[in-house]
Amino acid sequence: MTFYEKLDATLARKNSLLCIGLDPDPERFPSSLKHDSDRLFRFCSEIIAATAPFAAAFKLNFAFFEAEGSAGWSALERLMARLPGDTLSLADAKRADIGNSSRMYARAILHRLNFDAVTVNPYLGYDSVEPFLAEPEKGAFILGVTSNPGARDFQDAELATSQPLYEYVIRRAAEWNTRENCSLVVGATHPEQMQRVRRIVPDMPFLIPGIGAQGGSLADAVICGTDAQAGRALINSSRSILYKSSSNDFAEAAGQEAQTLCQQINHFRNQKTVG
Amino acid sequence: MTFYEKLDATLARKNSLLCIGLDPDPERFPSSLKHDSDRLFRFCSEIIAATAPFAAAFKLNFAFFEAEGSAGWSALERLMARLPGDTLSLADAKRADIGNSSRMYARAILHRLNFDAVTVNPYLGYDSVEPFLAEPEKGAFILGVTSNPGARDFQDAELATSQPLYEYVIRRAAEWNTRENCSLVVGATHPEQMQRVRRIVPDMPFLIPGIGAQGGSLADAVICGTDAQAGRALINSSRSILYKSSSNDFAEAAGQEAQTLCQQINHFRNQKTVG
Repeated sequence: MTFYEKLDATLARKNSLLCIGLDPDPERFPSSLKHDSDRLFRFCSEIIAATAPFAAAFKLNFAFFEAEGSAGWSALERLMARLPGDTLSLADAKRADIGNSSRMYARAILHRLNFDAVTVNPYLGYDSVEPFLAEPEKGAFILGVTSNPGARDFQDAELATSQPLYEYVIRRAAEWNTRENCSLVVGATHPEQMQRVRRIVPDMPFLIPGIGAQGGSLADAVICGTDAQAGRALINSSRSILYKSSSNDFAEAAGQEAQTLCQQINHFRNQKTVG
Repeated sequence: MTFYEKLDATLARKNSLLCIGLDPDPERFPSSLKHDSDRLFRFCSEIIAATAPFAAAFKLNFAFFEAEGSAGWSALERLMARLPGDTLSLADAKRADIGNSSRMYARAILHRLNFDAVTVNPYLGYDSVEPFLAEPEKGAFILGVTSNPGARDFQDAELATSQPLYEYVIRRAAEWNTRENCSLVVGATHPEQMQRVRRIVPDMPFLIPGIGAQGGSLADAVICGTDAQAGRALINSSRSILYKSSSNDFAEAAGQEAQTLCQQINHFRNQKTVG
């Protein structure tokens, strides 16, 4: 089964495009958990259990785990066992290095930790990306257009061939997609660029960050970011779900917010396909 | 003390530009260590002790540690205490994410692990790089021209302004250098590009990978990569030092190779400054 097939089957079975971003920031935990010795694991376990019914994927942001050192990596390892088998697991690690080192990152993330897919930075080119695409059942989400202000610095740079750099990256990623496992990160904060990218790669899955705290519109993300059948996209929400409540009911509040988001996304999907 | 001042003082005191790259690959360890339960720590500890007299810096390649999971991160943490105080510690982690997440990576690497500097990927732009440059005494080495074949894919892309992307990255990095702590990764495999970059940023420190296993010339790296005083550069060697011997004398052999390389580098530095 290729990564694309696994993604399509998951989105259909769960009737959801929602990706829950696990960016666990202890400063925003309820006070009962803030000083717990295994706080990342406990917080994320509860979020996973409460939001799982509405999630197509969980995306673990490595930065927040590494901020706790080897204890954070241990939490990451143990959380993999808590992820439901019917959702996708995404490593938001934004890795890439020369081929020799990228193979080690792929081993760490796709094999040892056993993630379904990983976010990959394209700046080092093909041999840095290829190790993450070596097996059809494992996927890479290549950074195309990111959702942050700095995306304008280089991604928007106009090339001599009269296209922005991000567009060239996306065309190359499409060439590299020989195993139906290469996908893209396309931020929701620039819907006009998202539309442009969707036209270039009509069938490629998108991971869409940037709604909520970063200000992207959910309607635009669904309408511009999904494929013609309103699929092939994962719409990520992190902070607005994780920190919906800062009290002991944080998990329950997160579950409700996830349900609401999943329904809103499906509402816009219906709008797109019906009318 | 700014990172630049710390770097200059270290290069002068050690009379060395050599950076020892710790890319510990258990498959290449002597058989007595291959199956040791703490193999990364033991291998690297011995390499550090044997090569320290000739090293200006140690560069730890995170990919190889992460390939061993949380045990690898634990080795990384414990190795920090083995690094000599008179050398620089570089995290070869090639990180960067949106500002919020990059701050967490900076916390993990520059604070919790307490590295002097970290390699940073520029694709996400300024807010992804800035957290690594926030404190003058800590440094970032921004990927300019990498040493791998894929460097040609995007870094060499010609912009509408008639410069390759890497050159634009370097000019922006120079603008971001408001605290004397922003440096560059410039691979030794393309000496003509290295020369071009050196002309644009005559005083910026370079981390130069790509000699040895990757085929770059040591003479070119020294002549083209150092500043006018034959300083402001760290020349990295990983595999040719670590795996000089695959037997139990690996550390001794690594020490000898490090001494040889340090002397060769100084020979070319003398050539450059004398005539």
